Amino acid sequence: MSERFDAVDIIRTKRDGGRLLPEEIDWVVDAYTRGVVADEQMSALAMAILLKGMEREEIARWTAAMIASGERLDFSSLSRPTADKHSTGGVGDKITLPLAPLVAACGVAVPQLSGRGLGHTGGTLDKLESIAGWRAALSNEQMIAQLEDVGAVICAAGSGLAPADRKLYALRDVTGTVEAIPLIASSIMSKKIAEGTGSLVLDVKVGSGAFMKDVAQARELARTMVDLGTDAGVRTVALLTDMSTPLGLTVGNALEVRESVEVLAGGGPADVVELTVALAREMLAAAGRGDVDPADALADGRAMDAWRRMIAAQGGDPDAPLPTARESEQVLAPADGVLVGLDALAVGVAAWRLGAGRARKEDAVQFGAGIELHAKPGALVRAGEPLMTLFTDTPERFERARAALEGAVTIAPEGSRAPERPLLIDRVA
Amino acid sequence: MSERFDAVDIIRTKRDGGRLLPEEIDWVVDAYTRGVVADEQMSALAMAILLKGMEREEIARWTAAMIASGERLDFSSLSRPTADKHSTGGVGDKITLPLAPLVAACGVAVPQLSGRGLGHTGGTLDKLESIAGWRAALSNEQMIAQLEDVGAVICAAGSGLAPADRKLYALRDVTGTVEAIPLIASSIMSKKIAEGTGSLVLDVKVGSGAFMKDVAQARELARTMVDLGTDAGVRTVALLTDMSTPLGLTVGNALEVRESVEVLAGGGPADVVELTVALAREMLAAAGRGDVDPADALADGRAMDAWRRMIAAQGGDPDAPLPTARESEQVLAPADGVLVGLDALAVGVAAWRLGAGRARKEDAVQFGAGIELHAKPGALVRAGEPLMTLFTDTPERFERARAALEGAVTIAPEGSRAPERPLLIDRVA
Repeated sequence: MSERFDAVDIIRTKRDGGRLLPEEIDWVVDAYTRGVVADEQMSALAMAILLKGMEREEIARWTAAMIASGERLDFSSLSRPTADKHSTGGVGDKITLPLAPLVAACGVAVPQLSGRGLGHTGGTLDKLESIAGWRAALSNEQMIAQLEDVGAVICAAGSGLAPADRKLYALRDVTGTVEAIPLIASSIMSKKIAEGTGSLVLDVKVGSGAFMKDVAQARELARTMVDLGTDAGVRTVALLTDMSTPLGLTVGNALEVRESVEVLAGGGPADVVELTVALAREMLAAAGRGDVDPADALADGRAMDAWRRMIAAQGGDPDAPLPTARESEQVLAPADGVLVGLDALAVGVAAWRLGAGRARKEDAVQFGAGIELHAKPGALVRAGEPLMTLFTDTPERFERARAALEGAVTIAPEGSRAPERPLLIDRVA
Repeated sequence: MSERFDAVDIIRTKRDGGRLLPEEIDWVVDAYTRGVVADEQMSALAMAILLKGMEREEIARWTAAMIASGERLDFSSLSRPTADKHSTGGVGDKITLPLAPLVAACGVAVPQLSGRGLGHTGGTLDKLESIAGWRAALSNEQMIAQLEDVGAVICAAGSGLAPADRKLYALRDVTGTVEAIPLIASSIMSKKIAEGTGSLVLDVKVGSGAFMKDVAQARELARTMVDLGTDAGVRTVALLTDMSTPLGLTVGNALEVRESVEVLAGGGPADVVELTVALAREMLAAAGRGDVDPADALADGRAMDAWRRMIAAQGGDPDAPLPTARESEQVLAPADGVLVGLDALAVGVAAWRLGAGRARKEDAVQFGAGIELHAKPGALVRAGEPLMTLFTDTPERFERARAALEGAVTIAPEGSRAPERPLLIDRVA
């Protein structure tokens, strides 16, 4: 069959800093999905996009082409509005777990299609799978029924949404082309737009444990994604939030579920509660329910009820004891003073090495593995006092986890102050 | 087997403008040849090299790694010094044909490993194959014996020389990464250094019919290649020569053999003679025979004798009539005046479309197809007078050839002067 365009011409245009035509973008994404454009051509194009950039119209068209490669869900039959949240990924970021039932308890349905973890950031599905009986796979019909009934669903994204993105994402991962803002933004937004949510709140993480290391980059990514959502008719807002230190006091699958349940019970670490409520307010406002205060639904137990129904609807037992690791070791404070730094990336890598994450897609995770923190930046610590506890089923992993933590802890003399790092950095709407 | 490096790390280093370590370069070229680094990884790296460049030491190491991927020839047993020539490719560039026997006649052996044409520039082997019986394939032993006996050999490069380059070249061709000076230079020089020549003269073409469209780029390529040769112990010189209009009066396989024989007989177009003699002088000087004047060997028939022996040694009959095309058509001058422009690229594409070249590696060429020019820039022409004759075996090709020639001819009012374009533009040593 004769093709309308030539991949080499398109690569050369972008390589030389030119702008791709809408028809060229449609063709190259479609032809790549069909296998007519080869992997080695798409990786050269991805590198050219990474180094030469794309204009807003190009990114929007690229996103639309990825959406067009698969199916689109439609929630217009639901009796309530929909809102979803996407986080660019951080260490200890369990916010989806309390957030989805909290927003559902406030009258807005949350259709959250999630993934599994790869590398040092955990995956929401891995966390929920530590609950006995819970299953991630739902049909589209089951998903819509649960949204109507419970108001919240967290499940695996089916293979029908944006298949071009799945193929391209795997390619970028092995070709050094992950870090291209147009490709990151279109990858995230193609799935969220295809998913059919009416509103979307983006949690763009900034700091050592996040993909974006500085605020300027994070703001550019947030702006690009908000524009993409808006152009596609999805009410989209982004918060830039700090990821220089882990969120909450736990990193690891079952450990994070436990902490999420504490938040839903009205307790939990202040930073997790603050971010959960802030994101819930944004989701409710975007979905036209800005009058409802999510803090009330946390305090009066409605969010906890929604959580229990959401877990049970997917076969999980909300009362089952959570898995615990077979072995633990403590990391002690090396000196007296103020804990001024606790590096998110190092803690994330250590938890990953303990078994909380996977190195390859095929690997299994250890549900009980991870790290519990006993102090956060700003705390006064005493030499020999436990700073954190490491958990794993396989004790030979402790050594490599401790190696990852080398230099992660900074203690300053008593009277010092930890650097001011507000959790909520900025808002892009 | 565990690998010493990770392809993604290497791609990211170059992508971010960093310098690759010598060991990284050795590994990535070797691992690509072994198939451990995938095509899609190498194409992303090639794009990063194209856009971010390489330093002299990196290019030298890359070249050395490509040489190390295969065998190296050794001419040290020969009784005379060796010198080779490489042209970056142009329209009507048949210079190798008279040059190799001319230099051999002056006492320097010429081991010329050539390729076939692809696209609008012809291939030396295609041209010689229009001579009845001539064969391009020689074993290394046959090649050395012919160098000792005749002093000149033009044959196909065996698959043992720089296999990494062959694999990479095919990849670059389909991924928009051909135009990277470090990759062009290392591709050419890895083969020439592995070939084992003692001296090398590079003919770097500049102009519409050449790969390099401007002098600055061509000079950079020449400088890069001269450095690579020098660093590898090959005495290397480059001439920058004009390719804004075809070389000589013929473009096409048998047509160019005929013109080459005219030059060897002491006639031929002035530009072909000038460039042949200039390159011969450089080759002789680089090989330590700067005292010999090649013009004498052209004038007294020694070059023709060497040609006849060179063709006969490879099974060719130097007296056999050359193939001619079945059909011809003339292109007439549209106006009276001075021919001030005759675009090399347009003439090359037209000859290619007439059947002189191939679109895909598997295609056959028509030996008689091509173009004969009746006027060159500077000539006075009259409306209706033939400017050129088109030749092909397949007359349906005339139309597309004429389309390629659209706008290729510029005629200015009588009294005008063609722009001064010296054939020899610069010398880089």
